[in-house]
Amino acid sequence: MNLVLMRTTPEPDRLVAIAARRCYSNRSAEDIDEKLSDAEVERLLDFLRQRNHLSPFEHADFSFSVDGISRALSHQLVRHRIASYSQESQRYVNYMKVETLPFITPPKIANDDKALQIYNQALEHTLKAYREMVEAGVAPEDARYVFPNAIETKFVFTMNARSLFNFFEQRCCLKAQWEIRALAMAMLAEVRKVAPNIFKNAGAPCRYLQNPYCRENDPKCPMYKTMRENQNEPDKNRGTEENNL
Amino acid sequence: MNLVLMRTTPEPDRLVAIAARRCYSNRSAEDIDEKLSDAEVERLLDFLRQRNHLSPFEHADFSFSVDGISRALSHQLVRHRIASYSQESQRYVNYMKVETLPFITPPKIANDDKALQIYNQALEHTLKAYREMVEAGVAPEDARYVFPNAIETKFVFTMNARSLFNFFEQRCCLKAQWEIRALAMAMLAEVRKVAPNIFKNAGAPCRYLQNPYCRENDPKCPMYKTMRENQNEPDKNRGTEENNL
Amino acid sequence: MNLVLMRTTPEPDRLVAIAARRCYSNRSAEDIDEKLSDAEVERLLDFLRQRNHLSPFEHADFSFSVDGISRALSHQLVRHRIASYSQESQRYVNYMKVETLPFITPPKIANDDKALQIYNQALEHTLKAYREMVEAGVAPEDARYVFPNAIETKFVFTMNARSLFNFFEQRCCLKAQWEIRALAMAMLAEVRKVAPNIFKNAGAPCRYLQNPYCRENDPKCPMYKTMRENQNEPDKNRGTEENNL
Amino acid sequence: MNLVLMRTTPEPDRLVAIAARRCYSNRSAEDIDEKLSDAEVERLLDFLRQRNHLSPFEHADFSFSVDGISRALSHQLVRHRIASYSQESQRYVNYMKVETLPFITPPKIANDDKALQIYNQALEHTLKAYREMVEAGVAPEDARYVFPNAIETKFVFTMNARSLFNFFEQRCCLKAQWEIRALAMAMLAEVRKVAPNIFKNAGAPCRYLQNPYCRENDPKCPMYKTMRENQNEPDKNRGTEENNL
Repeated sequence: MNLVLMRTTPEPDRLVAIAARRCYSNRSAEDIDEKLSDAEVERLLDFLRQRNHLSPFEHADFSFSVDGISRALSHQLVRHRIASYSQESQRYVNYMKVETLPFITPPKIANDDKALQIYNQALEHTLKAYREMVEAGVAPEDARYVFPNAIETKFVFTMNARSLFNFFEQRCCLKAQWEIRALAMAMLAEVRKVAPNIFKNAGAPCRYLQNPYCRENDPKCPMYKTMRENQNEPDKNRGTEENNL
Repeated sequence: MNLVLMRTTPEPDRLVAIAARRCYSNRSAEDIDEKLSDAEVERLLDFLRQRNHLSPFEHADFSFSVDGISRALSHQLVRHRIASYSQESQRYVNYMKVETLPFITPPKIANDDKALQIYNQALEHTLKAYREMVEAGVAPEDARYVFPNAIETKFVFTMNARSLFNFFEQRCCLKAQWEIRALAMAMLAEVRKVAPNIFKNAGAPCRYLQNPYCRENDPKCPMYKTMRENQNEPDKNRGTEENNL
Repeated sequence: MNLVLMRTTPEPDRLVAIAARRCYSNRSAEDIDEKLSDAEVERLLDFLRQRNHLSPFEHADFSFSVDGISRALSHQLVRHRIASYSQESQRYVNYMKVETLPFITPPKIANDDKALQIYNQALEHTLKAYREMVEAGVAPEDARYVFPNAIETKFVFTMNARSLFNFFEQRCCLKAQWEIRALAMAMLAEVRKVAPNIFKNAGAPCRYLQNPYCRENDPKCPMYKTMRENQNEPDKNRGTEENNL
Repeated sequence: MNLVLMRTTPEPDRLVAIAARRCYSNRSAEDIDEKLSDAEVERLLDFLRQRNHLSPFEHADFSFSVDGISRALSHQLVRHRIASYSQESQRYVNYMKVETLPFITPPKIANDDKALQIYNQALEHTLKAYREMVEAGVAPEDARYVFPNAIETKFVFTMNARSLFNFFEQRCCLKAQWEIRALAMAMLAEVRKVAPNIFKNAGAPCRYLQNPYCRENDPKCPMYKTMRENQNEPDKNRGTEENNL
């Protein structure tokens, strides 16, 4: 997986704070901006999260490019509707020229020699069938029906911070499918670099600094007990970025 | 493909007409309803389409169930974001119990003996690989990475009339991929039964009764010449429902 | 305020339950429907709410008409973006023919003789100014700039159940402005009649049967203490419909 | 009206072009970016507009602040749902401290001495009534029901380029209400400075360089005849920015 944060709204933390103050002030936006210290920006964003006033977070937008993900992942990704997607189209890409099918291997298969052999053979067979059909006159867009979920796809996509909160809540959760969870964790690490205050309290909600909870209400999750123990010591929940992966 | 129009807003044509009149009248909605003849409903909907006043069409909702479509189709379907989807999850369905993989065959492959043989063998091989991996201890949600685009999926989905206009504009077009076009044509036939006036002028825009045009501005399309010839005789564009398929 | 629930998706509770089961079953929607008892519908909807699986609730749509609300309310209403609105336009309605300006009076002003007199005179003056300007040749759409927030407006609007959950969370809260809260409580009473299971656990989140919480994290709210006391006896939170108003 | 374009996606023209090429290429986004000349960016954006492939335009976001607009305008503005708004709240701003009510005057009233006198007196009377009520113990949020459409409001708002296309189509039209049209024309002038290729063919559709048309199909509009005459000489439609206002 190759994830790049291509473009962001400049100074996203500050823009969200200005927008929030806009609601409660009759001063001009320029004047609000001028008098807003960085410490106030942070305090204001904390307050918004705590009070569930989430609409100001929509003003901050984040555009990513990602390669090396499967269409198993992408079918889940595009279910997030408050977002914009530009995806490599299988209808237009010519797979007659490639030597091997570009595909993703689940880590648990990659680490299991027997499974890996079955997996690789199955995918090679797929490309072989595709080629034989195209050579026999089948249109590439029909022949691609044999292509697997594992095949690589590529995206440019944009989400705003509020939509990202929702994405991280669902997809950083331990119950999320491994590949979309890996994407979500990588995205979270990237956006925290440019918008540390916006995303301070983002991720799976069991790791929230403030008001942690389990979206799934699932006492069987390994995180559930930790969350309960740490509800009064929230900093323990978060752990390091590495632990989060 | 098995498409069923499960639920619709009752009297959708009339509701849209009441909503439209609401904008220009200071009478109560009940009073508007009472005094609105069926002829006026039709005239009002024609007027809205002609003037591009499309928001009243959002009040009419249509819920479909569909079986027997491929994940090649479904990945395109869910890109339409002003809609609601509930999809059979590959993560939770157990494919160890099925005798044959449920899959879709493109008509041009079905009609070509040689291609069909390659196609069927490739998909059988896929199920075999899946089973061998699961028996070797791989989690079903990882083993499913070998499953093809062709595999069957099932949906319950809901769109409002305005979103359907957009869906039909893009997906009834001759340039749309054959399977999603077949779904779109089947949906259009269904909604016309319950909302004939709303959908009178829906479909690919080259077949519009009023103001036909080519979304793609593509003079190479076989419909393009017909559209140009018939722009002053719009009824010719539409043809029969059969021709549209 | 005159609120009418004009149209709803037929059997909304059942449709949401079918859609939810769609995600976890490989049977046809017709088959799911046939074998789903009313008791299972209720249990399934409870489960969805508890696990925050909210997307199936989007399939159920509710279309209201409302008269006798102010533009102070309507400006807040239309901020809910996952919804469809058709509003009486001030640009097209002729206020030269009305005898008195149709307006809304806040209850606390209506119950205060002195305030009421000031209020009524101010609004009468407004209509007088409008008329004098129109008679002097000003366009009605410019003269209406003197019209007050209090002026009556009318709507046809449609929301799905998931969007209504969000609307009720924000607008049934004691901190919501009185008029939009009155609308929200009236809407909640109406939708509960046709979709009792969908909306069983809807309203301000401090009154939830399951997992009550305060969106605003505000210990100063009179409901906050009650909520804390009743967290293990959730039925006490809800109280009667009357109490809720 | 004081409009400021506060923040934009950096290099918006280029980002949209990369996203568009993403759909038809299997190269990485970095590689696409590197090999894309500015001339190709322009040509690609023209092609997208011509073929109605509008989704890539969603990646470019534009955040504005605006002061000095009326609530007559803002009630129309927030009807555009694919956008994010942070508005000065009348509930929280204290109007007891202001000397005069901050309000907007329609130009046709400002240029008519008699109408202006009526207008100003009506608005002064409004503030007087508000103060008397608040002094008599009425809550400011109830007293504000007497405030006029003309009262000033302030916003921070964000729209993406595709949503802006729709906004400009509707609100740059001569039939739009004067104040929201003035805002739309000012916004168009601002975004053209930072994204000249994206917005080259934006505005009221009768002035499009490519495929001009009348959204309202209204032959009575003064622009209609000009549009018809110039359909083969599209550059004439546009005129200068000044003419557009």
